[in-house]
Amino acid sequence: MEFKVNSKSLEKLLSKIIPAVPVRTPMPILENFLFDIKDGLMTVSATDLEIALRLSTNVPSDENLKMVIPARLLYDIIRSLQETQITFNANGGSKLKLTTDNGIYNIGYTASEDFPEIPSVPKDKEIVINGLDLKKAIDQTSFAMSKEDMRPAMTGTLLEFSQEGLKFVTTDGHRLVKFVNKNIKSDRNEQYIIPERAISVLSKLLDEVDVKIYLSKSHASFFIGELELVTRLIGEKYPAYNSVIPLENENKLFVNRTSLNSTIKRMMLFSSSSSKQVKLSIGHNKLQISAEDIDHGSDAVENIDCRYDGESIDIGFNTAYVNDILTHVDEDEIIFKLHSSTKACIIEPEKARENEELMLLLMPVRLNS
Amino acid sequence: MEFKVNSKSLEKLLSKIIPAVPVRTPMPILENFLFDIKDGLMTVSATDLEIALRLSTNVPSDENLKMVIPARLLYDIIRSLQETQITFNANGGSKLKLTTDNGIYNIGYTASEDFPEIPSVPKDKEIVINGLDLKKAIDQTSFAMSKEDMRPAMTGTLLEFSQEGLKFVTTDGHRLVKFVNKNIKSDRNEQYIIPERAISVLSKLLDEVDVKIYLSKSHASFFIGELELVTRLIGEKYPAYNSVIPLENENKLFVNRTSLNSTIKRMMLFSSSSSKQVKLSIGHNKLQISAEDIDHGSDAVENIDCRYDGESIDIGFNTAYVNDILTHVDEDEIIFKLHSSTKACIIEPEKARENEELMLLLMPVRLNS
Repeated sequence: MEFKVNSKSLEKLLSKIIPAVPVRTPMPILENFLFDIKDGLMTVSATDLEIALRLSTNVPSDENLKMVIPARLLYDIIRSLQETQITFNANGGSKLKLTTDNGIYNIGYTASEDFPEIPSVPKDKEIVINGLDLKKAIDQTSFAMSKEDMRPAMTGTLLEFSQEGLKFVTTDGHRLVKFVNKNIKSDRNEQYIIPERAISVLSKLLDEVDVKIYLSKSHASFFIGELELVTRLIGEKYPAYNSVIPLENENKLFVNRTSLNSTIKRMMLFSSSSSKQVKLSIGHNKLQISAEDIDHGSDAVENIDCRYDGESIDIGFNTAYVNDILTHVDEDEIIFKLHSSTKACIIEPEKARENEELMLLLMPVRLNS
Repeated sequence: MEFKVNSKSLEKLLSKIIPAVPVRTPMPILENFLFDIKDGLMTVSATDLEIALRLSTNVPSDENLKMVIPARLLYDIIRSLQETQITFNANGGSKLKLTTDNGIYNIGYTASEDFPEIPSVPKDKEIVINGLDLKKAIDQTSFAMSKEDMRPAMTGTLLEFSQEGLKFVTTDGHRLVKFVNKNIKSDRNEQYIIPERAISVLSKLLDEVDVKIYLSKSHASFFIGELELVTRLIGEKYPAYNSVIPLENENKLFVNRTSLNSTIKRMMLFSSSSSKQVKLSIGHNKLQISAEDIDHGSDAVENIDCRYDGESIDIGFNTAYVNDILTHVDEDEIIFKLHSSTKACIIEPEKARENEELMLLLMPVRLNS
């Protein structure tokens, strides 16, 4: 069989599928694209067994053929070419022959029987969300997913459908982030846990194009225009996160995020590599931040403008976690809601955006002194 | 003692010295800056025992003091600050205290006795070269320095003073680059070998500022304005490189560098990881380039426009070396001068720039077939 494609449009197509190709895998077949040409439609897909990406395009071909082609090699060739017409020819048994005006490239390809089946998700229930809204929800929560496999549920992002809106929740036990998109309300109360890899690939693929989401008990499918991402779900129960969120933290510290973050970044230079601790000493309209590196005999203290009329509190945090949180809130005026030096602290933007809710919870650490 | 400095001007000074601070070293003292304050002049220096960097600035201080301060910590603090006045205070024994409007930072510092002496190079013979000219000579030759310690001379760049000009030579046995700056002629015939680390640090520091070079038997000193880089020299004899350069390669292939390089980059995708070989089949006004990856059953062939009326030659090269060379010639029309498939090939720009000479030599590899 033979067909022609434009190099730049093929490059664009492959660039959307290649994120699903694993970099290292014990199964060499996964290092390939599956090309499935059927009735003039060419579907290219790739999978790492956790996620799969799939996209179709029309090709002028009368014959049908499935082939498994080394993904990196094909992608690297195609994107190294100037814009040109490429003739694909797969008549000769085990080699795919690409021909351009100046060159001929032969690539060994494999039969497609061993390529894993990509699961289909039934399309009976459809959720539509704007791509940028989904990207925002992901980008504001994904950093707090747990990196430890001990509790698999916490290594993913919880999507929770509810009457209040679509909730995105992540936690690693030290901090918790909840983002609510109030535009997407639902009568059914359902939880789905999306694995980290799907979240990270999704974040890079999303733009202003609307996304259609389909869910089954075991899988989720995201359609970004024509591009489909299928992911398995984490089949565990998500921790009852609401029980750790304090209902009333009466002491409210109002502070500018940018100046606090700039201080915290300096404190990271001083906080001991063992304790990684920063101390906030909060008094009436007074915020003093300090850190000490006992091993290297260095310490630092800074004062920052704030508004506060609660009781005086000295509280310690992991410096890197405070930095993470300040980096992922995009409002400039924020509130720390505190109860005491041993209870969870809530961080929120001073003004919530319309139809959005963002809440970050951070557990304190015991102060050294 | 106490003195004040502007944070941004100190950041600029430290940024020029920090490249000499080793990232990993068995001697912790080298991870520091030496601050030497004497008669109102503050000299900051750092060394990894191979190279040293040194720069002075005026400070309003009546007292003299030498101190050894953790380099990364100080540099990271200073550059994380907004522009501000910093008060340095070193009265209190083992701690240096930095004070700004909002913060106080205490840094442990060490006595200076253990900090290694930085060699001085006598200033009796001075060579002046424009910074950009020196940068060009370095950038066009440095890639071909040997990475193997077996022959230490070849791990550096040769500076050779001669009546024809100042020559820069590098070789790793497989390829050789010679760049001549004909503006700097000298009656003395002298060779100095600059180590790789000095070359790589120099390249990043150079700009249009004139550079003064001083040389002794064991060391070289480069003054870029006020900033001094001192390096030890490699105390070995450089190989007699002239004897490997063929005097007459009568077959001349004229080719466009950009299109050849684009082809070679594609051939890198196909050349076997074992042989890393690309084949040039050269005939009358014909250049065919091919590569084969036997392990993966793939191969490629391209034809490129050229001018050639020598005898037909099939010649093989290491694909990565051809790519290196094509990346480091900046003229767009180049000549391959060939004798036969087993003799060294010379690559030159078709038109030499005024007062410059660039010659690259590449050894062929035996063709598989």
